[in-house]
Amino acid sequence: MQRNGVMECSVCHSKVVAGTPRSISRAYDKHKSKISSKQRVLTFLLVSGDCVLVGLQPILVFMCKVDGKFQFSPISVNFLTEVTKVFFAMIMLMIESRKQKVGEKSLLSVSTFVQAARNNVLLAIPALLYAINNYLKFIMQLYFNPSTVKMLSNLKVLVIAVLLKFIMRRRFSIIQWEALALLLIGISVNQLRSMPEGTKTFGLPVTAIAYIYTLIFVTVPSFASVYNEYALKSQFDTNIYLQNVFLYGYGAIFNLLGILGTVIFQGPESFDILRGHSRATFFLICNNAAQGILSSFFFKYADTILKKYSSTVATIFTGLASAAFLGHTLTINFLLGISIVFISMHQFFSPLAKVKDDKPAGTLELGDAQKHSHPILLL
Amino acid sequence: MQRNGVMECSVCHSKVVAGTPRSISRAYDKHKSKISSKQRVLTFLLVSGDCVLVGLQPILVFMCKVDGKFQFSPISVNFLTEVTKVFFAMIMLMIESRKQKVGEKSLLSVSTFVQAARNNVLLAIPALLYAINNYLKFIMQLYFNPSTVKMLSNLKVLVIAVLLKFIMRRRFSIIQWEALALLLIGISVNQLRSMPEGTKTFGLPVTAIAYIYTLIFVTVPSFASVYNEYALKSQFDTNIYLQNVFLYGYGAIFNLLGILGTVIFQGPESFDILRGHSRATFFLICNNAAQGILSSFFFKYADTILKKYSSTVATIFTGLASAAFLGHTLTINFLLGISIVFISMHQFFSPLAKVKDDKPAGTLELGDAQKHSHPILLL
Repeated sequence: MQRNGVMECSVCHSKVVAGTPRSISRAYDKHKSKISSKQRVLTFLLVSGDCVLVGLQPILVFMCKVDGKFQFSPISVNFLTEVTKVFFAMIMLMIESRKQKVGEKSLLSVSTFVQAARNNVLLAIPALLYAINNYLKFIMQLYFNPSTVKMLSNLKVLVIAVLLKFIMRRRFSIIQWEALALLLIGISVNQLRSMPEGTKTFGLPVTAIAYIYTLIFVTVPSFASVYNEYALKSQFDTNIYLQNVFLYGYGAIFNLLGILGTVIFQGPESFDILRGHSRATFFLICNNAAQGILSSFFFKYADTILKKYSSTVATIFTGLASAAFLGHTLTINFLLGISIVFISMHQFFSPLAKVKDDKPAGTLELGDAQKHSHPILLL
Repeated sequence: MQRNGVMECSVCHSKVVAGTPRSISRAYDKHKSKISSKQRVLTFLLVSGDCVLVGLQPILVFMCKVDGKFQFSPISVNFLTEVTKVFFAMIMLMIESRKQKVGEKSLLSVSTFVQAARNNVLLAIPALLYAINNYLKFIMQLYFNPSTVKMLSNLKVLVIAVLLKFIMRRRFSIIQWEALALLLIGISVNQLRSMPEGTKTFGLPVTAIAYIYTLIFVTVPSFASVYNEYALKSQFDTNIYLQNVFLYGYGAIFNLLGILGTVIFQGPESFDILRGHSRATFFLICNNAAQGILSSFFFKYADTILKKYSSTVATIFTGLASAAFLGHTLTINFLLGISIVFISMHQFFSPLAKVKDDKPAGTLELGDAQKHSHPILLL
C-alpha cells in the first residue's frame, strides 16, 4: 500500500517514505528551468539580432539601386560576401585571442589552426552545397514564376525537420510536426495575396524535369543547413570564429570557381567582380555577411528550426512596421497567415509538445554545450 | 531507495514491491480506453450521419428549384421543419415505447409527459433563440455581403467554446484553444477564394450598428447551441425523443408566432405556408428535420464542438466529392484550408492536448451518461 508517498513495509509494518514521482519530477523541473532560462536569453539575442539584420535588408537593397537598377553583377555579391565573412571571423578571432588567459592554447597559433582545419574538413560539404544553391536560384526562375519559387521554398522547413531527425537524431513530437506543417501553411497563406490572378488554382508544373528541379531546389539548401549544424556541433571544441574562417573560406573558393566557370563560358567581362559597387553595396554585403555569421551561431548553439522561425518572425515584423510607418494596408491573408505562424511557434516551443524523454528535445544542443564545458553565450 | 519498483524498508531492510506509477497508469489507461472506444463508435456514427445529411443538402436544394427559383416562401420552411421534427420525434417515441420491458414506466403515459414537460421547460430558451436566429440571417444580409456573413459565422466556434467554459464548466487546454482558433482560420482560408475582388483587403464594416448586429449574429446561435446542450444534458433521465418533442414543439410555436407577425405587417398572403411546395421540397424539409434531430444527439451525447467539426468535415467531403465526380479544380486555398482544419481536429481530440485532470475532458459527457446508467447509443 502506498499513500501520500508513505509506504508500509509488508514485513515489519513500519512506514517508509517513498521518492514519489512528483518529488522526483519537481527536482528535475528545477534542473530543467535552470537550463532553459539560459537558452531563453540565447534565443532572445539570436532572434532579435536576426530581426534587425533581416529588417535592414530591404532598406539596403533599395539604397543599392541606381535609377531602379543594380549596377553590379549579382554573381559577384556572393563571392564578396564570403570574403567579408572570412575577414570578419578573423578579426573576431584576434579579439578573442587577446582575451585569452595565460596558459590557454593560443587561438592564433599555427598548430591550433592546422588541427582545427583537419578536424573541420566536413565544413567543405555545406560550403559546396550553399554555393550550388546560389546557382540553383537562378535556374529555378527559368521554370517557375517568382511566387511559385517562394511557395516551394516553404517546403524546406519540413525537409529540414526530416533531415534533423535522421542526421542529428532529433526527436519531434506529433504536435511539433504539426506545428512545422502549420508554419509552412501560415507562410503560404500570407504569400497567397501576392500570387498573380492566373495562378489562383493549384498551378503546380507537370513536367518531369520541373519536379526534379523542385526536389533539388528544396533539398540542397535544407541539406546544407542541417549538415552545417552537424559539422559545427560535432567539433564543439573548436572556436566558432575559427570554424567560420574554414566554412566561409571554402565558400569563397567554391564561389571563385563558379566565377571562373562563367568567365570560361561567357567571356572575361564577368570577371570584373568589383564593377558597379558603391558605399551602399558595401553595407549590403556587410549585412549579408553579418547574417551569415549569425546563422552559424544559430546552428552551433541553437538549431536550424529556430533560425527558420526567426526569419519568419522578422518578415512579420517588417510587414507590421511597413503597415505602421508607411501606411500599407494589412490584408486578411497577412492576418490569417501570422495567426497561424504564431500558433505554430507557440506549439513548437511549448513544453506540452516536447517529446517525453529524460532529455527534452529543445535543450538537446545546450546539453551538448555543457558537456563540452564551453561558455554558451559567445555573442 | 526505490529501484525497478522494489523498495527496501529502512527499518527491517526487507524488499517491498511498490505500486509503480507506470503500473497504476497502465490500469488507468485500460479503464480509459474502454470508455473512449464506446465514445469513438458514437462519434463515428454521429459524424458519418451528419456527413450524409449535409452532403445531400445541396442536391436537394438544386432539385427544389423550378426554373432556377424557389416557388415556396423560405419563411415557411422553418415552420414546416419544426413540425416535421415534432412528428418524427413522436414516431420514434412510439417505437421506443413498444420496446419497453414490462414494469418500466411507460414513455407515452400522461404522467411521464407532464413530468418531462415540467422538467424540460428550459428547452424553450434555445427554441426561442433558434427562431430569433432564423430572422437575424435575413437582417444580416442587408448589412454585409454573403461572403462576409460566412466569414463572420466562423467566429461562432470561439464564442461557443467560451460559453461552454462558463455554462458547461468545460475546461480546454491551451493546445485545444489554439486548435479552435485554427479551425476558425482554416475555414476562413478556404472561404478566401470565394471573396469577390473588391474585398481582398480586410473589409470589416465600420458603422457602430454593423458591429452590434455582428455581435448579436455571432452570439445568439452560439448561445442557443450551448444552452441547448446544457438543457438536454441537465435532464439526462428524460428520453431524448421526448426532449425533442418539447424542443421542437416550442420551436414550431415561436416560428408560427413569427409567421403571424409577418401576416400582420405584410398582409395575409404570407400565411399560405404550403404554397409552392413539391415532393422535392418535402425531401428537403425531411433532410433539415433529420439534421435537427441528429444535432440533439450531438448535444446530449457528445458536444457542440464535435458538431462544429463534423459540419466542417462534411463541407470538406462535399468539396472533395465535387472535385472527384464533377471535375471541379481544387484551389490552393481549399488545400491549405483543409490541412489547417485536419491539424486542428487532430490537436483538439489528441490525448496530448487534454486538460491534465483525473477525468479527461473529451469523455466528460460520456462519464455523465454512464453515471445515469443510460444506454449510450440510442441511434
